[in-house]
Amino acid sequence: MSHDTLHLFDQAIALRAGADGNHRVGYLPKTYFNMVGPFGGVIAATLLNAVLSHPQRAGDPVSVTVNFPGPIADCDFTVHTQLIRTNRSSQHWFVQLQQDDQTAVTAMVLLATRRDSWEGTDLAMPRGLPDPQQIAPQDTTGFPLWVNNYDMRFIEGGLHFEPPMTEQSQARTRIWVQDKPQRPLDFKSLLSLSDCFFPRIFLRRAQLMPAGTVSLTTYFHCNSETLGRYHNQYLFCEARGQRYYRNYFDQAAELWSADGTLLATSSQIVYFKNEQ
Amino acid sequence: MSHDTLHLFDQAIALRAGADGNHRVGYLPKTYFNMVGPFGGVIAATLLNAVLSHPQRAGDPVSVTVNFPGPIADCDFTVHTQLIRTNRSSQHWFVQLQQDDQTAVTAMVLLATRRDSWEGTDLAMPRGLPDPQQIAPQDTTGFPLWVNNYDMRFIEGGLHFEPPMTEQSQARTRIWVQDKPQRPLDFKSLLSLSDCFFPRIFLRRAQLMPAGTVSLTTYFHCNSETLGRYHNQYLFCEARGQRYYRNYFDQAAELWSADGTLLATSSQIVYFKNEQ
Repeated sequence: MSHDTLHLFDQAIALRAGADGNHRVGYLPKTYFNMVGPFGGVIAATLLNAVLSHPQRAGDPVSVTVNFPGPIADCDFTVHTQLIRTNRSSQHWFVQLQQDDQTAVTAMVLLATRRDSWEGTDLAMPRGLPDPQQIAPQDTTGFPLWVNNYDMRFIEGGLHFEPPMTEQSQARTRIWVQDKPQRPLDFKSLLSLSDCFFPRIFLRRAQLMPAGTVSLTTYFHCNSETLGRYHNQYLFCEARGQRYYRNYFDQAAELWSADGTLLATSSQIVYFKNEQ
Repeated sequence: MSHDTLHLFDQAIALRAGADGNHRVGYLPKTYFNMVGPFGGVIAATLLNAVLSHPQRAGDPVSVTVNFPGPIADCDFTVHTQLIRTNRSSQHWFVQLQQDDQTAVTAMVLLATRRDSWEGTDLAMPRGLPDPQQIAPQDTTGFPLWVNNYDMRFIEGGLHFEPPMTEQSQARTRIWVQDKPQRPLDFKSLLSLSDCFFPRIFLRRAQLMPAGTVSLTTYFHCNSETLGRYHNQYLFCEARGQRYYRNYFDQAAELWSADGTLLATSSQIVYFKNEQ
């Protein structure tokens, strides 16, 4: 398959060999841009892609933490992967995305060869959710470009800036979402989806302001076989704000398949600028 | 103050200069040992201490993620700190703990100089909690040694292995906890406390089994001044299990001051070995 026939997501997160063997080179296109630079989810997916496509890779992702020390300029970047340690059934990686020898993104990735064990889920998916087909797709006029790569059906906590804009006592979003156009679900797209929520402070304060994720952690509760069951289906995702304190707030989120399997849990902390 | 008059916690997380200027040396004493090697909380605090005591440190911790690629042997280790990037009001660090040139622990730490902003909390501390003084301290007979460094008063979800041991439909623990003997609360002790919960799978399955944290993320919603208000007081901490799948489960936790201030939120993913 040529580069151009790949899904836009796969084109965006693709990496090519660098001049020496120590790094690879990538570029995140405008189609995935956010307010400042590329959408965090697709940046995270690019770093995960660097690990998953590495010849020494062993196992599937269990935990991914991505920190965002600086902005990514609209030009090529290099990705440097470092295998920290390989155990009997797990691997730890450290990844850096650099431009002009300065690091813009770092990630710690845990892969594991997962075996059968007892399984259970303490959380429950909400009942009585409307079907995604019953909900009008989000009008993305005026939204950052990356949003156009997702089919979003908001059940609760969408962004509506018609007056009156009302402050909320809590910032909860419930949404059906999938890639647009459809793309088989895998760890990379699931990781990107775990960052698909607008900053909670926008909802809580009913206003836009400078805001950006500084650290994202996603735990995977699935394997490739499980994910294969949910290709081309909407996922139900919920995000909640927790605490907003001196320029930073945190968010907790869950990503469920439509049949009620908890595929991933995620948390992030976000910079915001909103005076008292 | 000499080393011996320091609190045991500060003795444990202390670092001394290495042979060259590139690293420091530490040792975690038996008093903080867990089932295999030292207690994760005190390991995390040691890596955070390496950043906070670094001459280039600027700001207070906002986000700390610690991964545990391998066990720590009962001997000296080296800690290597790398300043990834300094911004106008934030710093990103990468830290590695090594023994025999092999990395046993990694951490990404975000520091920030926090300024006033709008503040709010979406979560609520449970009401009607019993006072810690009304609850008998946990009998730690047969528990790992590190537990003796904490005054734990379990409200719900303690470990009781008298028969009948009953499986739980969810693994929730509510606890009043503080350092024993008392120690002023700071970011290091708060980080350690965020890992003070027994593995959720022990409660869920009502049995012990091999289990260990592989990645811990804690977000701080406080500054030194806030923490100073809660010196020598119990914190209310709650932890819940989320999903248990193929040898790994995740946990979400909150740490509150007694007057209802959410000081930190935390998540972790834990390896476990329990057959179907």
